[in-house]
This record gives sequence, C-alpha cells and structure tokens, in this order.
Amino acid sequence: MEKRINVTKVFLPPLAEYNEYLEIIWRNQWLTNRGELVLKLEEKLKKYLNVNNILVTNNGTIPIQIALKNVAKGGEVITTPFSFVATTSAIVWESCTPVFVDIDPDHLTIDENRIEEAITEKTTAILATHVFGNPCNVKIIEKVAKKYQIKVIYDAAHCFGVEYDNKSVFEYGDISTCSFHSTKLFHTGEGGAIFCKDSELMKELNYSHNFGYTETNDISGVGINAKISELQAAMGLSVLHYIDYIIAERKKIVDFYNKSLDFNKIKSVKIRENTKWNYSYYPVIFNSEKILLKVQQKLAEQNIVPRRYFYPSLNTINYIKCNKMPVSEAISEKILCLPLYVGLEMKDLEKIVNLINRYSE
Amino acid sequence: MEKRINVTKVFLPPLAEYNEYLEIIWRNQWLTNRGELVLKLEEKLKKYLNVNNILVTNNGTIPIQIALKNVAKGGEVITTPFSFVATTSAIVWESCTPVFVDIDPDHLTIDENRIEEAITEKTTAILATHVFGNPCNVKIIEKVAKKYQIKVIYDAAHCFGVEYDNKSVFEYGDISTCSFHSTKLFHTGEGGAIFCKDSELMKELNYSHNFGYTETNDISGVGINAKISELQAAMGLSVLHYIDYIIAERKKIVDFYNKSLDFNKIKSVKIRENTKWNYSYYPVIFNSEKILLKVQQKLAEQNIVPRRYFYPSLNTINYIKCNKMPVSEAISEKILCLPLYVGLEMKDLEKIVNLINRYSE
Repeated sequence: MEKRINVTKVFLPPLAEYNEYLEIIWRNQWLTNRGELVLKLEEKLKKYLNVNNILVTNNGTIPIQIALKNVAKGGEVITTPFSFVATTSAIVWESCTPVFVDIDPDHLTIDENRIEEAITEKTTAILATHVFGNPCNVKIIEKVAKKYQIKVIYDAAHCFGVEYDNKSVFEYGDISTCSFHSTKLFHTGEGGAIFCKDSELMKELNYSHNFGYTETNDISGVGINAKISELQAAMGLSVLHYIDYIIAERKKIVDFYNKSLDFNKIKSVKIRENTKWNYSYYPVIFNSEKILLKVQQKLAEQNIVPRRYFYPSLNTINYIKCNKMPVSEAISEKILCLPLYVGLEMKDLEKIVNLINRYSE
Repeated sequence: MEKRINVTKVFLPPLAEYNEYLEIIWRNQWLTNRGELVLKLEEKLKKYLNVNNILVTNNGTIPIQIALKNVAKGGEVITTPFSFVATTSAIVWESCTPVFVDIDPDHLTIDENRIEEAITEKTTAILATHVFGNPCNVKIIEKVAKKYQIKVIYDAAHCFGVEYDNKSVFEYGDISTCSFHSTKLFHTGEGGAIFCKDSELMKELNYSHNFGYTETNDISGVGINAKISELQAAMGLSVLHYIDYIIAERKKIVDFYNKSLDFNKIKSVKIRENTKWNYSYYPVIFNSEKILLKVQQKLAEQNIVPRRYFYPSLNTINYIKCNKMPVSEAISEKILCLPLYVGLEMKDLEKIVNLINRYSE
C-alpha cells in the first residue's frame, strides 16, 4: 500500500506500555464506572493542566451537551459558525437555538464585538470555540456575559495544554470542554473532559454524566451516561507519558511550516497575544477556493490528504436557518489544515511545502 | 482483602487474547471512527443475534437518546416505572415527557393492557423495557401502537441473546437498544447497540450517531457522537468468543437457584412464554421490604452484596411528577437481584441460598 499522508495520525504509545495499565484493569476486574485508571488520569491531568476541576468523559461532544443542559436550558445560544459541526449540532440536539455571530478574520474566533447585538431576552449562554487552540477574546466575552447575566461555555476541543495569560485556557468561562479524540494531540481513543471552576456547578455536571447519581448513590437530577471506560483511561495514561515529546515534535513541524511557506501567497491564522499555544493544527488560508482546490488536487496526486477544516461554515448546514456570515463563509471556502503529527518526515514536509508554494497562486 | 461477592462481576477474556486484537489496532493505527474492529464486531453480532441491522455505540443510553430524538420528537412517551433510571432520564433529557404506566406484577414488564388509556394526542412513542431480559407483551403493544400510529422503542439493555417467538427480541418494535456495559453478560467495557429493521430509519439513526454525517461525508441532519472506540470493540470481540460458555455457566447458577430457593417464602419473576431467555439476572421478590432488609443485612455480614434492582420505582424520583404506580412501587421495595456471574462458586451459592431460605420470612 502506498504511503498516505493525512492531516493527522494517531499517536500510539508502545503496546507494552499500554499493557502495563491493562494488567491493572485485569487485576482490578473493573472496566468502567470511574475505576482506578480514570481517577488516576483525572489526577494527573489536573496537575499537568493546572486546573481546579476536571471530569473525564467518553468523548468531547457529550460534555458540551451536559454543559448546555445545565446552563443554557433550552434558550438561545450565541455561537460561532467556524467550528466542528458538533458545536452547532449539540446546541440543536439540546433543544436550544443557535444564534450565530460571525468571526474575527484574523483569529477565526467569534467576533467578540458583535456578540452584544445578538443578545435577546431568550439568550441564556454563549458557546464559543477556541478554534485550532487559539483562545477567544475571553476578557470581552466575560464582560458581555456578566452584563447580561448569561453563561459562557467554551468548546475547547482543540486546547489541550493551551494557556492564556499564564492560566490554563480551560479556566476561562463558566464551563470548558475538551476532546480526547484519537486525532487530538492528547487522546484516549475516544474521550473528552469537562472543566468548571465553580465546584457547585461541577457537582451538577458530575451527576449529569452518571445518570443523575451523586457520589452517595442518590439521584440528584437528570443524567445520562458520559462515563469513560478504563480501557480508554489506560490509553490516556500511556499517551500522557509522552506529552512533552508530542508537543515538541509538533512544534518542530509548525516551525518548519512557518519558516518555509510563502506567506505572500497564503495567510496563516493569528494566535492571540499572551497565548501559550499547543501546535494542534496548521491551518492556511488561500486567496480563493479555486486555488485551494488546485493545491488540494496537487497534494492528492502525491497521496497527501490535508483536510478542509472547517468547511462548510456551520450557518449554512441543512438544518440551520440563519443569516449570511460573510467572514466565516469566505474563510471556510479557502482554509486547509496541513498534515501535522508526530512522525511526519522532513522529506514529506518539504514536498508539502514545495507543492503549496508552487501552486498557491 | 476479604472476598466480596457482588451481584455481578465482569467477565474478562485472557489478556493475551485481548492483545491479539490490540495488535490489529496498533497495526492499523486506527482507534475510532468505525474502524476495522467495530465493523468486524457488528458483522459477528449481526450473525450471532440474527438481526437485520445493528449499530454498535459507546454505551447503552445514547442509543435510547438517539431513538427518542428520531421518533419521539419531544412528545409524550409512555414508559415503565420499573427499569434502570436511564430509561426515564433519557426521556427527560431528550425533552420528552414520560407518562408512566404501571407494570404487570408477574412479568414486571409494562402492563400492556393499561397503555391505551394513557395515550393522548401528544403521545409520540412507547419506551418499554424488557426488564431482566423478559420480553414485554410485544404483540399487544404493537397492536396499540399501530392503532394510534405511535412508535415503539424497546429498552432491551438486558436482552443480549434473548429470543421471543423464535426471533431475536431486538427485532420487535421500531427500534431496540442494548447495553454492553461491563456488568452485562456480553460487554465491551462500556458500550451498547441500536437495532432497527427499517433500513431507512436505520440510516437516520446511523447519521445521528456520527454528528449527522452520512457515509458519503455529507451532513444529513442533527447528530452527536455515539461512536465506540476500537479498544472497546476489541473487548467485545474477545468476549464474544466465550459467549456460549458465559451463558452456559450462568444457566447452571440459575438452575441451582431455581431448585434450591424456597419459593414458599419468596417469589420469582415469570418469564414470558415462548421466550428463549438469557440468564441475565436473578431477581427474587420477598414478602415485604422488612424481610428484604433483614436478608440483605444477613448477606452483607458474609460480604455478599446483592443489589436492590430496580429501586426506587422511577415514578418517585425527585424530578418526576407522577401518579402513584402501586405495583411497581410495591415490587421495587421488596425485590433483590442475587449474585449471578461466571466464576461464582458452588459453596458461595449454597451459602447465599441457605441465608435467604433461613431469613426470608
């Protein structure tokens, strides 16, 4: 089979190391329901990420659902059209109404200066995405949310390890969520997490994720099942061991793209000031969709498959009725995420850069 | 640590056999998104269970949510008060209104003769549980549902391998769901499945479980993430290898209880005629809660921990407003599920039976 270079590739620890954790599972004869490995993973992540509270879940979407259920409560939710589809679909699934606000063309995060005009009496929450690990303007968003007494949820799916103003980005807003999907830099195969500084609200999120059960086994409220298995927690623990290496390797690739791509022809995304970024994605914006399609074609001929990420703009998907979002729609059409993963070889990187520089005009 | 006998104990295949599947994962470098092992597991289960369609999911609750979203659509859902809390909480979570109908005191399934009187103009679906793997009266339920043009969802969490009238119990109703939780006779650590004969409806359930994406990668409708990882599918494949042994071992325990317990003092649950049952649970009903508590205490003194399953009756939980359900409430207070798992030893079984026979009056 010819080698194919995708936008991402899962990082797998040595199978023998994964097996060390499996042996604990087999010894405990315990596979889920907040077992030893899930608790250990939460402890280690809390320390690594320097966060107050964390709850590890079975994927990165269900924490958004749980957050919406607990704080958005069926109201209007102001959100970004430039994100993975789950950001919007979770809002609709949870019987809330998405109200889109266009994005800032430089950072690609929700345009913080246009949120206020979208607020109505029915607005209960803002669900904004720190897209590609790039933080939203959390300070202005916080100010607006306070003024109107609405809650802020950050879809921080891409943000593992990101810090903003010397603090984990997960500590901003009322609730943040993360994805530990296998394509993410830290992963549990499938998985995710929910973060919340307010320990009282955290209790609600916690029982929501386990059928409504509190730790004393009483039913406190409505809940579903967002529990992650020990098999997945074992993967998380094995991967976490390599996290510094993973980030360092990704940084090398990002540095190479930064110095080698011809930014007269393409545009990169501006990382917000005071951000310690995580090298999670490498998006580039072409001058037109036509150029993007040409470059994509040329890369595909070499079996290199970047991803049109995020495309389409979420305000245009079939079950959404919404005004035009000119910035998001324009960028969605001409943005491509380049291959970025541990193990991507220099000769392939050079090939990618050469093709892009050659065909992106 | 003193040996503790719980109501159930997870069945773990030899770690070496699980590793054979892990090697495939490491070779594929593919951890989720319907990988080779998930597809293989679905094929094998389809054959083993003799069903038309199956979609394996990350747990047993999310398929209920997906089913409700697609067919109950926010209406009133007629349901049983005698089930695990997820049956009710999924209804509430999905913005539907649970309308309880009391249970048949012999089979403990929803009283099929009282469904019709609970139907209103707002009723969109029936969500009934084949509790302990004991099928509901599917024929009468089907008749009522047809008459009022409402949909039938079966929470078949306990029903792995159950047949009714020579057909998989999963083939009844519009949609059935199952749980592959680690405490179930077949499991994937955490996991579940959705079954649906109607291939068109199955397509909707399928895209709902993957963010709305169809197989051609178009967004067809609203979706969330119910995907199961390869790590869990690997567990399913390893366990499935032992399924005949698992069922045979459980049958031995059930046969022992059947012949040794004193049914002058306690009552068992009546399995519906024409059912090929799966030995999933061994519930016994005492004459009063007081006796149950005494027996529970005596067993606890020997480190034997059966489970009050299902308790409380779901119409009484704090976020539900509902009329009394006399049968379900009375049975919930005096029913206990006895230990039943592969590896439960004869001397322990004898101890359990002796204690119950001695103290259950």
